[in-house]
Amino acid sequence: MLPAMIIGAGFSGLAAAHALNKAGKKFIVLEARNRVGGRVFTQPVQDTYYLDLGGQWIGPGQHRMYELAREHNLQWFETYNTGKNIIDLNGRIRTYSGLIPKIDPLSLVNIQWVLTRLESMAKRLPPDKPWTTPRAFTYDGISLDYFLRKKCFTRNAYQVLRPGLETVYACNLNELSLLHALFYIQSGNNLNTLLSIENGAQQHRIIGGMQQLAERMAAPFRECIHFNHAVTNIVQDDTGVTVSGNNFSYRASRIIIAIPPVLIRNIHFEPSLPLLRQQLLQKLFMGRVGKVFGIYRTPFWRKYGFSGQVVTDEQQPFQVFFDSSPADGSYGVLLAFCIAVRAQQFFSLSQTERKNMALQHFSRYFGEEALHPEYYTDHCWADEAWSGGCYAAVYPTGTWTSFQDELMKPFGNIHWAGTETSKAWYGYIEGAVRAGERAAAELLSHS
Amino acid sequence: MLPAMIIGAGFSGLAAAHALNKAGKKFIVLEARNRVGGRVFTQPVQDTYYLDLGGQWIGPGQHRMYELAREHNLQWFETYNTGKNIIDLNGRIRTYSGLIPKIDPLSLVNIQWVLTRLESMAKRLPPDKPWTTPRAFTYDGISLDYFLRKKCFTRNAYQVLRPGLETVYACNLNELSLLHALFYIQSGNNLNTLLSIENGAQQHRIIGGMQQLAERMAAPFRECIHFNHAVTNIVQDDTGVTVSGNNFSYRASRIIIAIPPVLIRNIHFEPSLPLLRQQLLQKLFMGRVGKVFGIYRTPFWRKYGFSGQVVTDEQQPFQVFFDSSPADGSYGVLLAFCIAVRAQQFFSLSQTERKNMALQHFSRYFGEEALHPEYYTDHCWADEAWSGGCYAAVYPTGTWTSFQDELMKPFGNIHWAGTETSKAWYGYIEGAVRAGERAAAELLSHS
Repeated sequence: MLPAMIIGAGFSGLAAAHALNKAGKKFIVLEARNRVGGRVFTQPVQDTYYLDLGGQWIGPGQHRMYELAREHNLQWFETYNTGKNIIDLNGRIRTYSGLIPKIDPLSLVNIQWVLTRLESMAKRLPPDKPWTTPRAFTYDGISLDYFLRKKCFTRNAYQVLRPGLETVYACNLNELSLLHALFYIQSGNNLNTLLSIENGAQQHRIIGGMQQLAERMAAPFRECIHFNHAVTNIVQDDTGVTVSGNNFSYRASRIIIAIPPVLIRNIHFEPSLPLLRQQLLQKLFMGRVGKVFGIYRTPFWRKYGFSGQVVTDEQQPFQVFFDSSPADGSYGVLLAFCIAVRAQQFFSLSQTERKNMALQHFSRYFGEEALHPEYYTDHCWADEAWSGGCYAAVYPTGTWTSFQDELMKPFGNIHWAGTETSKAWYGYIEGAVRAGERAAAELLSHS
Repeated sequence: MLPAMIIGAGFSGLAAAHALNKAGKKFIVLEARNRVGGRVFTQPVQDTYYLDLGGQWIGPGQHRMYELAREHNLQWFETYNTGKNIIDLNGRIRTYSGLIPKIDPLSLVNIQWVLTRLESMAKRLPPDKPWTTPRAFTYDGISLDYFLRKKCFTRNAYQVLRPGLETVYACNLNELSLLHALFYIQSGNNLNTLLSIENGAQQHRIIGGMQQLAERMAAPFRECIHFNHAVTNIVQDDTGVTVSGNNFSYRASRIIIAIPPVLIRNIHFEPSLPLLRQQLLQKLFMGRVGKVFGIYRTPFWRKYGFSGQVVTDEQQPFQVFFDSSPADGSYGVLLAFCIAVRAQQFFSLSQTERKNMALQHFSRYFGEEALHPEYYTDHCWADEAWSGGCYAAVYPTGTWTSFQDELMKPFGNIHWAGTETSKAWYGYIEGAVRAGERAAAELLSHS
């Protein structure tokens, strides 16, 4: 009896493996990197510190993540969310409390109205089938940016909404279909959840870093994971699947492919993937995000009453900032998100230039102490060969309506996982886990 | 002294080779297929007939194509364009003469107005730099389809414009950025040119088929072309470039890559391609077009006064028809274009089903004789591994404004050709030739 096989040991592949393992199914996992976790990666720094370079938050509605954390004896803590937030608009820095920045009342009303509109449009999408909504063709013919420009009557409203939404989608807002934007909102419950810390998708972090969950999930079947095994060829025949790469070849009864869509393109399939799937894979692209970190001896901004949160307009190099210090606050971590066009500019600089620019901007908000971190680093996910970008694949206009859920359809003995194949929490670690479990259930139903 | 190298023997690669050959430069050409021509391919049928399965027309403004035809002693002839055209709208078939279909006057005025709008918007784009137009961000945030729906006040106007424009761009109109649509129009002089036979891009065909031009261009250096050489790895170092694939490896001083953007993704580069270029390559997708042919003993529709031209709404399986008979009319060829969503549906059928459906529709317009061809075939370019689709790569929304002309920038000793790297006649054979010649000039300037 041939084993099953999983390609990719990110959260989706691990969740699939976890499920197969529980069901007593024999399997192996092939992973291109030398580690588990995929788009999640916790980097230890100088023996004392750690940084979550990739996915780091969980929040309400992400039931499987909390259950997995519990199951693996991991604890979570509240993202620091106390004190004054900062908004940097038109070169002017203002502080505010809560979710509502201190800008003109007309813009505030406008922002609330736009968010409500997006929310209610998302809510009306037929669950799981965004392409069947009566206005699907119109929504799929414009970008989120166009919608925003039409609905923002003040420049300030647009300038506040834009960095927030760029941070949700990890791309320029004119790159993604409004229909995809709405699907994504529905998939993550609602827009408020996606934008918020409190009661939102950024509410909790895992003590010690998200990577630990991947490691602990992998522990029971670690000997079944083959690292540094980048798959280049997948051949299906009547009795199973042959999966091969540089200097290796394995046979399996059925396989689960749990890697980002853009990397599936690089694999040679026999027989070829269905034509529609090939065409869809041509169109999906990965979000582009960099995370920029300063580690400080203490979270010194807290003592001045700052939350560490900043939102900035496009004159600045980073969209938003968070306090990403560890649970006990024993040291401080400032985290800035650098997304899409800003990432293109920032990551075209040298490491030294980037460090200087980042620290200048950190000190712009938090004073001179910010100029002297214990450690500085930045990480551009678009540059990771085995991710191709982060957080997830994005649907450009005309894609949902043309290809529907082509990405999820099994092909012979191949099942598909990855957060992009989940209709709940698309783009989040939770979506990855759910997709992996769904793919495992599909596979087991054939055993 | 290392030779130069060209990857791809389509028209762009051949034009580059032609130029290097003239300059006395040593070079080799690697081609994945067993033939030259790329997205141009003339298929001989039953010793007597031929069909241009790929690119087949040239027209005014495409100077290099006429010059090349002359240089290689090929003659061209006028596309048949006499008699009544047919429009099939809402299940009703009507005939008309000239460019203007017989529909309600309001729709006719509306159509003319929309075409004039597109034309004048395209004309105002800064030549060669579409992303610098003052309205670039707005144009790049919506699809051509959305623009069309906003500007068409009658259903008929939309239904007539849509298949025509789908035939120009070879994709669903909600898949492409309005900015790209305008760039494409400017690149091909004007919209009237792109849509027309008379004085348009469909005016002339090469007697004996377009493939001959590729063959004759290749003749002087045919021994330098290595067929069935699909490139998988390109490694640059201080002294040149190593290009390899399954069982071969060659060294070159500099190389020209003349293949569609989506296929560049499948090649492994060392050092990696610039990040911006990788990100852009994730986003470009190929048009999806199938050509459907019936060969008849005579072009019998001509005797009933039909031109062979049909435009149909989305209830029918094909967007437009042409008379594609040979110059002397010694036999008849009906050609239907099947594009984007219609191609998805049509090419999901079996060969027999497709033939039956196509002949039913041929006879719908041209009577019972159309049911009995000498030969039937259809060809789906999306299914061609070494093209990935036709006619060309398409820019989705937010791409020109984010990536500008990243596709054309040389990378070390690598120069880029292919119709997608031409700012004149993007998507046409003429663009391929101009890009090849431009890349050859770049390469020679380094010798």
